[in-house]
Amino acid sequence: MTIISFVSGTGPAGFGLAARFARAGDEVVIGSRSLERAEEARALVLQHVPDGRVRAAVNAEAVAAGEVVFLTMPFQVQRQSVESVAAELGGKIVVSMSNPLEVVSGRVTVQLPDAGSLAEEVQHLVPSARVVGAFHEIHVRRFPKLDRRIDSDTIVTGDDDDAKSAVMRLCGHVEGLRAIDGGGLYNTRFVEAFVAVLVTINLRYKAGTSLRITGLPEGV
Amino acid sequence: MTIISFVSGTGPAGFGLAARFARAGDEVVIGSRSLERAEEARALVLQHVPDGRVRAAVNAEAVAAGEVVFLTMPFQVQRQSVESVAAELGGKIVVSMSNPLEVVSGRVTVQLPDAGSLAEEVQHLVPSARVVGAFHEIHVRRFPKLDRRIDSDTIVTGDDDDAKSAVMRLCGHVEGLRAIDGGGLYNTRFVEAFVAVLVTINLRYKAGTSLRITGLPEGV
Repeated sequence: MTIISFVSGTGPAGFGLAARFARAGDEVVIGSRSLERAEEARALVLQHVPDGRVRAAVNAEAVAAGEVVFLTMPFQVQRQSVESVAAELGGKIVVSMSNPLEVVSGRVTVQLPDAGSLAEEVQHLVPSARVVGAFHEIHVRRFPKLDRRIDSDTIVTGDDDDAKSAVMRLCGHVEGLRAIDGGGLYNTRFVEAFVAVLVTINLRYKAGTSLRITGLPEGV
Repeated sequence: MTIISFVSGTGPAGFGLAARFARAGDEVVIGSRSLERAEEARALVLQHVPDGRVRAAVNAEAVAAGEVVFLTMPFQVQRQSVESVAAELGGKIVVSMSNPLEVVSGRVTVQLPDAGSLAEEVQHLVPSARVVGAFHEIHVRRFPKLDRRIDSDTIVTGDDDDAKSAVMRLCGHVEGLRAIDGGGLYNTRFVEAFVAVLVTINLRYKAGTSLRITGLPEGV
């Protein structure tokens, strides 16, 4: 089992994933700028997973404790948040899962950073981090609904094959989630931007859609 | 039933779609720069769909005859091909389905045109055309395998709602294909680029993948 940290893990993505991984037997460390809020999130996870191994810490300590670090802050503050724990992120497997999207008067806009994608921006900010893109396709509101399976594929990207494999294995701890190797970190820009289309579809059909890749060999 | 034209419809996409639409009862017009090659493609379609209503014509005449015009040339020549029939494309429903992708030493590269996508480039070249993006997710080799269902969703984009609806209805004539409204033509850039990830997945898994959007309301 893996020690998994969440930077700014007090929101729906951090709480939901922490609870799901804790339920699967992983040890989770919920980080926050405020230790008090991290403790509150920890208590909430333990309500749902009473026997879970759950710690609370300020972000830098959470990162230092984790083998795999999830960035679970709103995308608008991801850059500054990563900068604030850059020293601790060095050498770590870091999962970037946000999409640089905003809905303005019913229209979805994409603002990819200069680095090409949020994931590549993390790589740029912390060159020694082993950055992996994943979970982009899953609507953030799905994570905290612990009684529902995720029921989606997720395309996993990264330049460090061992890091990517580790994250793909972790995906297998989340019920109903299937990880698919989507190539190098460069491809993350296409995934992050494509989610704008999924969000458009959600708005048009008043739905909460996910993605399935069909035609893969048995057992993937 | 609809009269459907194919600009440079002698390749696998044009042949396959022409045969599938002819089988569904639509009238198809296969265009080519060479009338002789158009006639050959027509004969091939009639071999598979003996009672099909199939015509052959040079590209400009094919476009003029069609209610809906599919661009089925290799993406590298789409721009010059569209320019050569720009006058005839005016006012027509035009389906752009190519992706600006190339595989170079096992790596997929994307070269979106200045307009943002191939579909938007067509709109830019022929402002009065009613351009719709569709069929991007379907590997070109699938179209001519007439004994196989397409078995994929396709995200349909466009700024002209009537044109988009017409193309979505036409998608219903292709067995195993489901059309999903993906918003305005602007979103086509995200779809075209995302196909690079699908192609990457195909290469990694030695598979021919397609896409399914899950979580939509019943009956979509």
